[in-house]
Amino acid sequence: MTPRVSLFTASVHVTEVTTRLADFFDAKELRAATLGGQYAELWAAARHSSEGGKKFRPALVLNTYAALGGDSQDDAVAVAMAFELLHTAFLLHDDVIDGDTMRRGHPNLLGTFSAQASARGVSARSAATWGEASAILAGDLLIQAAQAQVARLGVGEHKRLALLDLLEECLFVTAAGELADVAFSTSVQIPVLSDVVSMTQWKTAHYSFQAPLQAGAILADASADTVRGLSEFGRNVGIAFQLRDDILGVFGVEDETGKSSTSDLREGKMTLLMCYALQRSDTDELASILAHSDITAADATRVRQLLETSGARDFIEALITDYAQLAMAAIDSPAIPAGLRRQLEEVARKACDRAA
Amino acid sequence: MTPRVSLFTASVHVTEVTTRLADFFDAKELRAATLGGQYAELWAAARHSSEGGKKFRPALVLNTYAALGGDSQDDAVAVAMAFELLHTAFLLHDDVIDGDTMRRGHPNLLGTFSAQASARGVSARSAATWGEASAILAGDLLIQAAQAQVARLGVGEHKRLALLDLLEECLFVTAAGELADVAFSTSVQIPVLSDVVSMTQWKTAHYSFQAPLQAGAILADASADTVRGLSEFGRNVGIAFQLRDDILGVFGVEDETGKSSTSDLREGKMTLLMCYALQRSDTDELASILAHSDITAADATRVRQLLETSGARDFIEALITDYAQLAMAAIDSPAIPAGLRRQLEEVARKACDRAA
Repeated sequence: MTPRVSLFTASVHVTEVTTRLADFFDAKELRAATLGGQYAELWAAARHSSEGGKKFRPALVLNTYAALGGDSQDDAVAVAMAFELLHTAFLLHDDVIDGDTMRRGHPNLLGTFSAQASARGVSARSAATWGEASAILAGDLLIQAAQAQVARLGVGEHKRLALLDLLEECLFVTAAGELADVAFSTSVQIPVLSDVVSMTQWKTAHYSFQAPLQAGAILADASADTVRGLSEFGRNVGIAFQLRDDILGVFGVEDETGKSSTSDLREGKMTLLMCYALQRSDTDELASILAHSDITAADATRVRQLLETSGARDFIEALITDYAQLAMAAIDSPAIPAGLRRQLEEVARKACDRAA
Repeated sequence: MTPRVSLFTASVHVTEVTTRLADFFDAKELRAATLGGQYAELWAAARHSSEGGKKFRPALVLNTYAALGGDSQDDAVAVAMAFELLHTAFLLHDDVIDGDTMRRGHPNLLGTFSAQASARGVSARSAATWGEASAILAGDLLIQAAQAQVARLGVGEHKRLALLDLLEECLFVTAAGELADVAFSTSVQIPVLSDVVSMTQWKTAHYSFQAPLQAGAILADASADTVRGLSEFGRNVGIAFQLRDDILGVFGVEDETGKSSTSDLREGKMTLLMCYALQRSDTDELASILAHSDITAADATRVRQLLETSGARDFIEALITDYAQLAMAAIDSPAIPAGLRRQLEEVARKACDRAA
């Protein structure tokens, strides 16, 4: 895995999350080995799935907590770890739903297990079942593990319940976003622009930005105003982050993003970029290209042209600027200490302007 | 849904679990409606998935708790509910893994959502994706909800952590069992008899018998001896229960079991019954019938004959008796109050001798 641009210049404490995750997976693998060799392999693959990401959700928890005066590093690391485990679980199940066998340029758990089964000579259908079952179960286990981190906190009942509520809401909202995403890409629902904005907020902004920021603040006993400001910041920066992702998914340089610049098109992903372009009357051509199941490189080039000429790319760039400004406004308040504000401004800049 | 034979003559408190589950789903549906109509439908379908079962896991928790002198009905109902939610989650994900669109004689969540998407005119592949995504997400949400019941108990840290450990181990072991089951049915692994016994214990006995009994006892502050005896009872009775299920799956009367008596054969389920028969040298014919993807009624009749003549059916019947005796022996101890022992003896009898 190639480490990619971090949203933070320095997040020293994130290495503690990596260490704690390694300990967690060590213990699980050891115990799993007593329940069959394949189960130990499943846990090893789950560990591998959790590696190589940017770990920016843990960084958001830890930096927010520290900036707000929190001093129990152990608790903060546990909560940070919960978000990373949840993120990994979402990726695992998302890949099953999308039928993806690759992630970050390498075979994912589903792809690896399917390929191993094929190599043992089982039928293609059985190999696919084996890969899917493995990825579903790994995700289930990590959803459980994420919550266990928070459930076992020794922080007093009031705070523990608040964090449990936050994590429950996090899965609840993200599942709504994932469901909407699938509804759009399968044409079960034909969305208008506002539907796609909501989906983006639910599926990405909530668990990747809002909830980690809120969690760090709640753990640090921050005021309701602080929690609210951070949530509002997270919501807006999260939407901007995803809009940048949508643009990179089509216009990005594969060597920099580590991701095929035709896969979003091939999967029929309904991004705000695409939704806007499809609603312009002069782009029937776009709909007809996207209706193909096979998108060629020439198709992709033409799609990029149409996204430019329809004004879709400019529209999204302008929206990114708008959401970034809303994010900044949300933390321009005495409830957010100046040190934290400076860090978050950098987060917003990197989320919106990155090339990978 | 036709209610089927209960493992208990009377479990008055189970109605409280049903009521609490209804309240839980009411609240979730209401909140889900604010995140899109489809999301509210998903929660309604998740509720439906949790209805109509025998609720014997909640009954095990509640009856054990009451028999051991527990007097906080509220806590016991929460724990009982956790097991029912976990059970529903397992069924939802199991159906995705097996590609089943029916459950208890009716379309399951996957089948219902796929059919609805097809009716809206989307492609067969998109309809399948929509059904699978919905069932995966519903299961994810219920795994989370199960754990939340235990995480929010106000029973003191020591007991809460013990119950969290129990629930974590419950998912951990059940996932190992599910993985082994899929490994066998996809031929990723060719099991010997002891592998199938382990799979049966992990996949069924642990979460359906052992863990609910242990949970009721821990919640009631029972001694370590009591918890151990109940766990041992649950393990043995759970295996016997599943072996009876395996026989009913092939020899059962469809009108009584509510389940097709050819579906286990069609899915290539590797039960102990089948594993034993396949290891008899004179039954190559059995392997060749089971290798077909289409099992006709005539095939099924022939399979039943072969299971009889190979001695497999008798072997399993004898095992059921053995495991039932081991279960009884485990509770023949002063650590198990006489009243509870009598109830559990009835559970064992019904689990082993039922016709549905």
